[in-house]
Amino acid sequence: MEDEVVMLGFHLSMFDIRVRIALAEKGVKYEYREEDLVNIKSALLLVMNPVHKKVPVLIHNGKPICESLIIVEYIDEVWKDQTPLLPTDPHQRAQARFWADFVDNKVHEVAKKIWTGKVGEHEKEKEELIKNLKTLEEVLGDKPYLAGDTFGFPDIALIPFYRWFSTYETVGKMKLDLFSPKLIAWGKRCLERESVSKFISDEKEIYEFVQMYRKKIGVD
Amino acid sequence: MEDEVVMLGFHLSMFDIRVRIALAEKGVKYEYREEDLVNIKSALLLVMNPVHKKVPVLIHNGKPICESLIIVEYIDEVWKDQTPLLPTDPHQRAQARFWADFVDNKVHEVAKKIWTGKVGEHEKEKEELIKNLKTLEEVLGDKPYLAGDTFGFPDIALIPFYRWFSTYETVGKMKLDLFSPKLIAWGKRCLERESVSKFISDEKEIYEFVQMYRKKIGVD
Repeated sequence: MEDEVVMLGFHLSMFDIRVRIALAEKGVKYEYREEDLVNIKSALLLVMNPVHKKVPVLIHNGKPICESLIIVEYIDEVWKDQTPLLPTDPHQRAQARFWADFVDNKVHEVAKKIWTGKVGEHEKEKEELIKNLKTLEEVLGDKPYLAGDTFGFPDIALIPFYRWFSTYETVGKMKLDLFSPKLIAWGKRCLERESVSKFISDEKEIYEFVQMYRKKIGVD
Repeated sequence: MEDEVVMLGFHLSMFDIRVRIALAEKGVKYEYREEDLVNIKSALLLVMNPVHKKVPVLIHNGKPICESLIIVEYIDEVWKDQTPLLPTDPHQRAQARFWADFVDNKVHEVAKKIWTGKVGEHEKEKEELIKNLKTLEEVLGDKPYLAGDTFGFPDIALIPFYRWFSTYETVGKMKLDLFSPKLIAWGKRCLERESVSKFISDEKEIYEFVQMYRKKIGVD
């Protein structure tokens, strides 16, 4: 039986992009359905992710899988013969999961407070974001990728945010000037992969989306 | 080489208890070191978990693993021949991870706002907590355990919170009276396992700890 793979997404969502990168790395063919998150969610999304009602959702032979990092692990387990995304060694796997989780809780959650907040508020979050990105730089060290020599799980977790950094700076009126050439080089290295360059968002489009969203929620 | 397993924990932490249950299920021998989180953290904890500086940490042959759900997956992968904690089917694995993640983000995070908040605030969180526990009841349905017939990953994620429910009610001045006999029966079923009954916290001790903590942070 041929696999039927459908993805419900929103092209500017960092979580959506993670899944698309993973599918591209594995060479999985799928139908992509863009959701209109700002206005009305599709009946299919509400049926497939009744708990969170959020994209991305991967529907594999009719069965939904939700939450981006869980989907990426699922993709790695199902299409296991191509381009492994997680290492095989349990300790290295735990490290890969640790840094992916760090991106969610210590980069995204912190940054979101800044870009959905009123200008001038969230000074504590700005300091924390700078500190946490510095931690990621230290983890990268002299390695080409976060988990070592190979592009993988923590890189997939972080790379969609790379194009958000300039919006963090503009909206938060802050400078992420901690960036050493290493993190910039890592981003460029990831972008050399077609799986990344094809799906990663455009900086200007992110900025315009955030401006629209801020007006909608009444913080600008 | 004999495995050297050390665990840094705090016996009232729900996250600590998850790891102890997993180790007990696998029959792993380990040295348990209780951390004094309220006063001063040990040098070992700061070295082994420099990023979050939190328990639990599992130190396996000198290498640290942090974050409770990541540790439980690690334990399942390393001691894979005994009592599998995650299913082998990728879709079922994704479901198990989804519900464990739900416990973290939709039970713990919501409940924490209530029990660390001022009395009378967080009415929205109370409604949300009740709704989210109801969702877990629906997931349980007529199954003995959250993932099906076998005690596993999502049960390990949720069961430490079972003894916190009465504290949520007392501190939040709320009734979690949604509980059907099913969820109560699930809790009792889990408690029949020595791995759970041996490590799960005492309700009175949790309540006293929360009272002390609330005074310390100045909300009571």
